[in-house]
Amino acid sequence: MRTVEALVPLKLTLFGEHAIVYGEPAIAMAISESMKVTVKESDRTIISSSSLHIGNIRVNLQDMRVESDQISKALSFVIEALNYFEEKRPALINIESSVDPSVGLGTSAAVIVGVIAAYSKFLGYDFTNLEIAKISRNVEKKVQGLGSRMDTFTTSLGGILYFPRGSENVERLSSLPEIASGYVKRTATTAEILRRVKTVKENGREFNEILKLIGLVVEDARDALDKMDVETLGQLMYINHGLLMSLGVTSPILDELVSTARNIGLPGCKMSGGGGGGSAVCLKSPKAELLLESRGFKLVKSELNRTGVTIKEINS
Amino acid sequence: MRTVEALVPLKLTLFGEHAIVYGEPAIAMAISESMKVTVKESDRTIISSSSLHIGNIRVNLQDMRVESDQISKALSFVIEALNYFEEKRPALINIESSVDPSVGLGTSAAVIVGVIAAYSKFLGYDFTNLEIAKISRNVEKKVQGLGSRMDTFTTSLGGILYFPRGSENVERLSSLPEIASGYVKRTATTAEILRRVKTVKENGREFNEILKLIGLVVEDARDALDKMDVETLGQLMYINHGLLMSLGVTSPILDELVSTARNIGLPGCKMSGGGGGGSAVCLKSPKAELLLESRGFKLVKSELNRTGVTIKEINS
Repeated sequence: MRTVEALVPLKLTLFGEHAIVYGEPAIAMAISESMKVTVKESDRTIISSSSLHIGNIRVNLQDMRVESDQISKALSFVIEALNYFEEKRPALINIESSVDPSVGLGTSAAVIVGVIAAYSKFLGYDFTNLEIAKISRNVEKKVQGLGSRMDTFTTSLGGILYFPRGSENVERLSSLPEIASGYVKRTATTAEILRRVKTVKENGREFNEILKLIGLVVEDARDALDKMDVETLGQLMYINHGLLMSLGVTSPILDELVSTARNIGLPGCKMSGGGGGGSAVCLKSPKAELLLESRGFKLVKSELNRTGVTIKEINS
Repeated sequence: MRTVEALVPLKLTLFGEHAIVYGEPAIAMAISESMKVTVKESDRTIISSSSLHIGNIRVNLQDMRVESDQISKALSFVIEALNYFEEKRPALINIESSVDPSVGLGTSAAVIVGVIAAYSKFLGYDFTNLEIAKISRNVEKKVQGLGSRMDTFTTSLGGILYFPRGSENVERLSSLPEIASGYVKRTATTAEILRRVKTVKENGREFNEILKLIGLVVEDARDALDKMDVETLGQLMYINHGLLMSLGVTSPILDELVSTARNIGLPGCKMSGGGGGGSAVCLKSPKAELLLESRGFKLVKSELNRTGVTIKEINS
């Protein structure tokens, strides 16, 4: 029985979430917290994931019809990823994640990246990580309509990535101070957050100015990273967070956390990812981790992952 | 025994706190919550205020020496205001405020305005409100060194005032939706807040861009007030607050409050004044008042005061 396993790192957005959707630059990192996608030869196709709240879903491979009423977001990503391949072979597809979905750590992208990586290998393809990134981005676009290439590229390629303004390129950055991060369940849905952003967007010229200012923060954060100027980097995290609060994408728990961090003199903290609850990222210190835990955040393994998605074939 | 009483309205900054110090515009309003300064003929000069934590301080009028070791900020304002007058006559000077000092409601300015107004009348002068505003501003400058004319002008003149960019003029605005406000004791001192602002200022070009963006918010808030476009006004309050968070002048309790307000759909809230705890201002609704109270804010009488400081002579 052939089995292919893809191990996909999750990611943290360090700077520029939301603004990247409107063409501004961003910086993200792949982390040691990961997702495992296993594709195992079988006579029928079943998709399962206890951690992503998918039970055991039977899929009709002929017309890709899901034999279940309840289709979660994660499942629709899997289906769309499988649909990328014209040729299909029945398989048990299992997804295991150690973190909850939809908390800003790139689990949606990782699902796609993992399925593309493992299923392509299962079918005999040998994709490079960049090919996996590009295919995954297209799959994600099909399902979501909008968003950015940040999550699919970061989880595919690994490392500290700079996404430049108005370009499809990605640049690797070399240095990064240690990071602490954690997440809480989201209190606002993506739809609610996007509605709030839309209100700001429609209400005046401030929206574009905030985005431009976030772009400036991202550029300066890149410089600070190059110089390993940790103090400036931390200040830019706080500034970035305030700008995200202006956009309406933060949440009471995130704002209180970041504000407290600044109040007690931590060098830098901000929300990370989509917002509305979800993830926070801080410059690492025992105090930062304690603060995250004290506010109910579940700590996330935040060491830098440099490899991106890795694929392992197990023939038993 | 001649007695002169000055009733000074307190104030709320609606938009543009901090940025006005660097030349950006701002909007403030005088409110129904007020301070009373009484000047009563006597054979010696004693300054007293239970509410401002001044006990009974005897002042030597010859050389304006205070016969007490402990000099509070409020007291130094009183002394400097008395020093404005070359001619001096002994008097019991009492200051009563219904709100705590240093919570962003302009109590410092109101002390000066009240003493200038009452003591000038006591000496036989007939100053206009604008004269009182200008004298008070100069007195404040002497004590504080920096700051803006916003508080002294608003508490002297009353109304909804627009302070234009790079000008010493003041414009009266005519319309304003109802406002709810409240305050908590500050968790950060002015010195701590200014240190945080300084860190942002020294760390890069973001500082000036944030100030400019606040200026833009203030201009648009003025337009929204002219049109009584309450929805836009509320959005601009949230945007202004996020920008103040970026500057580092908010506090955990203020950020959590404003974030919760936005989360539960209140049309607009922000911090008001110097920050670091202190005051918050919201578009008025039962929900907004309930939220303020639920977070430990003491509600403040926030009806618009149109008269500014008023002086009453009581001859008994």
